[in-house]
Amino acid sequence: MQDSLDDLYHVPRPPLLVVISGPSGVGKDTMLIRTKERGFEFMFVVTMTSRARRPNEIDGRDYFFVSRQKFEGLIANNEFLEHSVVYGDYKGIPKSQVREAMASGNDVVMRIDVQGAAKIRQIVPNVVTIFLMPDSEDELIRRLVERKTETAEGLQRRIATARDEMKRRYEFDYVVVNHVNHQDDAVDEIIAIIRAEHCRSRRTPIVL
Amino acid sequence: MQDSLDDLYHVPRPPLLVVISGPSGVGKDTMLIRTKERGFEFMFVVTMTSRARRPNEIDGRDYFFVSRQKFEGLIANNEFLEHSVVYGDYKGIPKSQVREAMASGNDVVMRIDVQGAAKIRQIVPNVVTIFLMPDSEDELIRRLVERKTETAEGLQRRIATARDEMKRRYEFDYVVVNHVNHQDDAVDEIIAIIRAEHCRSRRTPIVL
Repeated sequence: MQDSLDDLYHVPRPPLLVVISGPSGVGKDTMLIRTKERGFEFMFVVTMTSRARRPNEIDGRDYFFVSRQKFEGLIANNEFLEHSVVYGDYKGIPKSQVREAMASGNDVVMRIDVQGAAKIRQIVPNVVTIFLMPDSEDELIRRLVERKTETAEGLQRRIATARDEMKRRYEFDYVVVNHVNHQDDAVDEIIAIIRAEHCRSRRTPIVL
Repeated sequence: MQDSLDDLYHVPRPPLLVVISGPSGVGKDTMLIRTKERGFEFMFVVTMTSRARRPNEIDGRDYFFVSRQKFEGLIANNEFLEHSVVYGDYKGIPKSQVREAMASGNDVVMRIDVQGAAKIRQIVPNVVTIFLMPDSEDELIRRLVERKTETAEGLQRRIATARDEMKRRYEFDYVVVNHVNHQDDAVDEIIAIIRAEHCRSRRTPIVL
């Protein structure tokens, strides 16, 4: 097939679907806030859950809170990109959320745990996956302790989980270290990754 | 095998080998100069040639100028990463040049024509390849005419070659457009690509 001159100089740049993952306490939320503060435009997908809203949580910001029944109906209709049961409650990413966000023409960023990220990679092969990691286990523990939301037992469990998750970091496209004294580096790197991924040749549009 | 904690938090970041390619006249040299001006540290590999030095050329900057005999000796010893015959003269990239540059610990950038880039990709699979393209054929022609080094016939040949090369842009990892009124965008993108590639998981050291 002969390319026309227009085809020759056409460079498609469809919006990206980006997953930011990493151990609990590594600073994923802070990183996303800082990335946005730097003027980087993206849509953020909010997870849906069937668990009860905590007093400090806002519906539509922290999670979409729905009933168990409603959640199960959505599962039955294959409406989740990925979902799982966490401590007896459902948690999942509604496809409609991702579709709407992508329709805006902006990049779409999802913050997902390591297990969920693995599932999304299988469903959407051209998703861009970033593993955010702490620079040491001491630092991760410091962050988890600082949260003051964990019991001693909960803390031990999170540390054990973090170790398992760290071993899976090479399943991701990129590994970004959130250095405790150079957090701007991690922000710069995330922005660079997204910018670079827009320049990837043969980037195909995301289909859910 | 059980990862030790040190292994878990070790993130290797070996230097990259980067190829910048694209049609003749697209602005590869200017782009590299601007990238360097922006404080991005990299080593540049100079091509070796058996053709005679032109009055405005400097040995070791524009090319390494050597005799035909010397060049053929290096070919016989498999000392070139890639080489070709251009208008009856040899042109090639000495492996020693690349090894020395990489030993510095900095990233190494090579400016290579599209045909040479294809060869290097085969020899060094983890090279990062960037195709720099003009935003239109008119713009490419304007640049070539501006050089004033081409005969009308030479110009026609370069345009035809550029069309063939443009069709091969998807063989490269990245495609960067050198927009005539936004050249800084291309510089930003090249820097972002290199920064992002340093964050790639499972990046293995370059072996020549």
